[in-house]
Amino acid sequence: MITNITDKTMLTLPAIPPVNLVAQTSARARQNLLTKPAGSLGQLEDLAVQLAAITGQLNPSLARKAIIVMAGDHGIAREGVSAFPAEVTPQMVMNFLHGGAAINVLARQAGARVIVVDVGVNAEFEPLPGLERCKVARGTQNMARGPALTRTQAEDALAVGLKIVEQEVARGLDVVATGDMGIGNTTPSAAICAVLTGRPVAQVTGRGTGVDDAGLQRKVTLIERALEVNHPDRSDPLDVLSKVGGLEIAGLAGVIIGGAAQRLPVVIDGFISGAAALIATALAPEVKPYLIAAHQSVEIGHRAMLEHLGLRPLLNLNLRLGEGTGAALAFQLLDAALRILNEMATFAEAGVSDKAA
Amino acid sequence: MITNITDKTMLTLPAIPPVNLVAQTSARARQNLLTKPAGSLGQLEDLAVQLAAITGQLNPSLARKAIIVMAGDHGIAREGVSAFPAEVTPQMVMNFLHGGAAINVLARQAGARVIVVDVGVNAEFEPLPGLERCKVARGTQNMARGPALTRTQAEDALAVGLKIVEQEVARGLDVVATGDMGIGNTTPSAAICAVLTGRPVAQVTGRGTGVDDAGLQRKVTLIERALEVNHPDRSDPLDVLSKVGGLEIAGLAGVIIGGAAQRLPVVIDGFISGAAALIATALAPEVKPYLIAAHQSVEIGHRAMLEHLGLRPLLNLNLRLGEGTGAALAFQLLDAALRILNEMATFAEAGVSDKAA
Repeated sequence: MITNITDKTMLTLPAIPPVNLVAQTSARARQNLLTKPAGSLGQLEDLAVQLAAITGQLNPSLARKAIIVMAGDHGIAREGVSAFPAEVTPQMVMNFLHGGAAINVLARQAGARVIVVDVGVNAEFEPLPGLERCKVARGTQNMARGPALTRTQAEDALAVGLKIVEQEVARGLDVVATGDMGIGNTTPSAAICAVLTGRPVAQVTGRGTGVDDAGLQRKVTLIERALEVNHPDRSDPLDVLSKVGGLEIAGLAGVIIGGAAQRLPVVIDGFISGAAALIATALAPEVKPYLIAAHQSVEIGHRAMLEHLGLRPLLNLNLRLGEGTGAALAFQLLDAALRILNEMATFAEAGVSDKAA
Repeated sequence: MITNITDKTMLTLPAIPPVNLVAQTSARARQNLLTKPAGSLGQLEDLAVQLAAITGQLNPSLARKAIIVMAGDHGIAREGVSAFPAEVTPQMVMNFLHGGAAINVLARQAGARVIVVDVGVNAEFEPLPGLERCKVARGTQNMARGPALTRTQAEDALAVGLKIVEQEVARGLDVVATGDMGIGNTTPSAAICAVLTGRPVAQVTGRGTGVDDAGLQRKVTLIERALEVNHPDRSDPLDVLSKVGGLEIAGLAGVIIGGAAQRLPVVIDGFISGAAALIATALAPEVKPYLIAAHQSVEIGHRAMLEHLGLRPLLNLNLRLGEGTGAALAFQLLDAALRILNEMATFAEAGVSDKAA
């Protein structure tokens, strides 16, 4: 089944199935038979129960892992919202393809493949192994002066995410994670956060890759101007996405929706991925039980995002890099959670006395 | 060089060498050349720098990992401070030896070996593969009525920890972690925490494996009584350890000191390991730069311990199991930190523009 998300659009989203409550209940029951005080492995226990609910199995294999890194540029970067110049976006895409970036290193450790998607970089790439060329536009327009994207562009970028997930599922996929690259992209992410969580801009805008006080104030002022100029309609997620979003954020929203539609655990990285998750859950609230928050970012608005999404992050390591790095680190905790559920002895098997009733 | 720790004791502690500041500086300098905003990998960056300082190398191998699980019983358990009966201590030792406990599962995932040490279990064990039989006594005495241990017992248990580390180093060891098993052992750990951090007992005493409100109140009252009865001398760590400690806590203090003496990174698990770290750093403050806090436990006093030790935990997953489970999970982050430092491309190598100066 596919549904039109609003009557203003032609985009159709895949249906999201409900999670498996029988497997969820079985997993929770088994946690309480294992040789540990009930609940003493905290979030690891909850995570295994969630993975059972998502996959319908107590012992699913998560061997085939992918991190989908969406890359795009931002017109707003011309206003000096980043500590790095805009040419770094295509340079980092090349770094990803050569295996030298942080996400490559952590993906290798996790045994995950990295799929780099040009959904909106302001540069042309030759065909290269590992690069998906799906450019919708050469970056967004400057949202402080008008809409970042047309509605059609936002839809097209979202469709790129849906398509990439389908393609990866066809190659074999058990769990998917989101990653991003785009100089300037904490600015639209903060804008989306402000609109969809209802918080003041100054409360959800941070330093990104490291702007100084003046840069931070500039970001806040520009986002406030973008909201005034564009009047994004909070009740229409595609309107928000197109007016103050970005192509890689739209692509990641597609990855999130596509992953849930395929019954995959979807590991959400940090602030930019969080903005995509806000859009995705606004478009399709049924994706929520499929989401796993990898980490709590340094970026100040991330906490508001996670609260709005109802997610508790697995890690809190003061990360603020993006690329999917937090998600790659979290993969190991998913594996740990499943091993605990499936490899530990029960009280009965081990001949250990349970808590006095 | 060996030093007498106090004039009241015959125990000699190994010398702790200073960490390597040249390697530390080189590691920090390299972090800032890698293709990421400086500092954007947060605690992972600091961790790699610490590992370089400890090992003297930018790219040390941490392939040979061991978790030393010290097991002991507690006279105070007779007063109903635990949700589990005391016979669970030897039952869990057998579970460890059969590979069915949480620590076995997580150690397998981490590629770590588990060494189970009977330093004070109130049961006799046959010789069994994987079990180190180093019993100092069949558990402590009830500290609410008198000293938990004699000073000699505390020293002997500490020496067990030193000896086990030496033995494991001889087998080949790159990184060591602490783990514990002992029904009732959050009670002496809270007592040690109260004495050495100077906090009120009620502020550092939690529910352990899950006692109810009445049990928690009983724990607080018993610890307060133990402190009144025994008058532990805060300025004499061995006095604190013997009067309100435990044999596995003493053994772990020995592991911590022995690990630092061998220039090993020492990964500290949760609340009981934290109590051992308080004792170890009081005896030998030079161990501090070798310590890595694996996680923030649910146990309420753990935060006070970590603050006192000046350590920021890597994980915060609502764990409260002990056994070394948090430490086993943290091993992967040590590996990730080192891979980042050594496998990432620099700005120059990747042709990526650095932040505008």
